[in-house]
Amino acid sequence: MSTVSGQQTETEADAGVPQRVGRGRPARYTREGLLELVVGVFNERGYEGASMEDLAKASGFTKSTFYHHVSGKEELLRMAVNRALDALSAALDQTVASGGSPVDVLENAIRRTTEVLLAELPYVTLLLRVRGNTDIEREALARRRGIDTRLAALVKAAVDAGEIRSDIDPRLVSRLLFGMVNSITEWYRPGTRNLKKSTVDAVVGLALEGLKANRSSAQ
Amino acid sequence: MSTVSGQQTETEADAGVPQRVGRGRPARYTREGLLELVVGVFNERGYEGASMEDLAKASGFTKSTFYHHVSGKEELLRMAVNRALDALSAALDQTVASGGSPVDVLENAIRRTTEVLLAELPYVTLLLRVRGNTDIEREALARRRGIDTRLAALVKAAVDAGEIRSDIDPRLVSRLLFGMVNSITEWYRPGTRNLKKSTVDAVVGLALEGLKANRSSAQ
Repeated sequence: MSTVSGQQTETEADAGVPQRVGRGRPARYTREGLLELVVGVFNERGYEGASMEDLAKASGFTKSTFYHHVSGKEELLRMAVNRALDALSAALDQTVASGGSPVDVLENAIRRTTEVLLAELPYVTLLLRVRGNTDIEREALARRRGIDTRLAALVKAAVDAGEIRSDIDPRLVSRLLFGMVNSITEWYRPGTRNLKKSTVDAVVGLALEGLKANRSSAQ
Repeated sequence: MSTVSGQQTETEADAGVPQRVGRGRPARYTREGLLELVVGVFNERGYEGASMEDLAKASGFTKSTFYHHVSGKEELLRMAVNRALDALSAALDQTVASGGSPVDVLENAIRRTTEVLLAELPYVTLLLRVRGNTDIEREALARRRGIDTRLAALVKAAVDAGEIRSDIDPRLVSRLLFGMVNSITEWYRPGTRNLKKSTVDAVVGLALEGLKANRSSAQ
C-alpha cells in the first residue's frame, strides 16, 4: 500500500472507528485508518468474501483511486496480520526480558497477550481467522505457530519449576489457556475502558488459579 | 435435502471421514454422510466461499444429481447448525435434569458441552463460524445466544450458592469458560480416543479449579 494522500498521522483513537481525514470528497485516510477500514470489511464479510470493489466502496474512493493506493487484497492481508503478529511477538519479547520466576513470566505472558489482543482487536481477529489458503496466510500461520510454541515453552518451564500443576500436558494447557484468551475476539466490543481491565484481570485470575490448583499433589 | 439413494444408515464412524456407500459410480451416501461431506467443504472454504458446484464436485455427484438431492446451500447450513444446536441443547437439558448442587450442575455442563463439541466437531465448528449474514444464520445465532444464556445462568447459580468465586462477573466467567471450550475446534483433530478423554478432563480441571479459587475470600 502506498502513502494515502500523504497523511502519516499515527494517532489513532481506541474506539474502533477508522480515522477519515478531512470532510467531504475526496475521501482521505491515514495509512492506518485505511488499513483499519479494510480489516473491518474483511472481518465482516470474510477475507475470501470481500472483493477489491467492496473495499473501494467502503473507503469512499473510486475504484481507480483505490487501486492506485493499494496493490491488492493479499498485500492488505499481509500488512494486517503482520501488525498483529509483530505486536504479539514484541509483547512476548518484553515479557521474557523482564524476567522473574517461570510462573511470573507465564502470568505476564497471559496478561500482555490479552492486552495486545484487546488493543489490536480487529487485526488479531483477522489473524485468528486465517486458514492457510494462500502463501501469505500460510506464512501468517507459521508465525502464529512460532508464538504458540513460545507460549507452550513458558507453560512447560513453570511446570518443570513445580510452580503449576503437572497433571495436564503443558501443550494442552497452553492450547486451552490461549484458546480462552483468543475467544475474547468473538464477543468483545471496544469502548468501555473498565471492561478492558476487568477482562484482562478475569483471564489472568481464572487461568492462573486453574493452573496453580492441585500443585501440591503434582510434586 | 431429500433422501439420498434411499440409504438411511445411522452408523457413522468417529474418524471424520464421510461415509460413502458402495463402490464405483454413481456416488451413494447416507443422508448423514452427505451432510458431513458438505460441512467439511464449508469448514475448509468458508460457507460463503463454497459454491453448490464445489459441493457437487466434492460429492462425486453430477451437478444435476446433486441439485436433485439437495435444495440449496442454505438448507444444508440449516441442517448442519441445527444438528449442533440440538445436541448442545439436549446435553444441557440432561445436565439440568440429572440435578445436584449448582457447582456439580455447572461441572456437568462443562463436561457434557465439551463432549458434544468433540462428538459433533464439524457441525459445532461450522456453527461457531456463523456470522449472521442470512436469516438461517441469524436464527442459529439466536439459538446460540439462548444456550449461552442458560450456561451463564448456571455460573450465576453456583456463584449465588457461594460454591464458586464471586469476584468476576458471572457473564464474563461464562464467556471465558465456554470460549475456552469452543477454542478446541481450532486445533482438535479426531482419531485419538485418549486425546478426547484427556481434553475433556483438562477443560473441566482447569475451569473448575480456576472457578473454585478465592472462594473463601468471596463469601
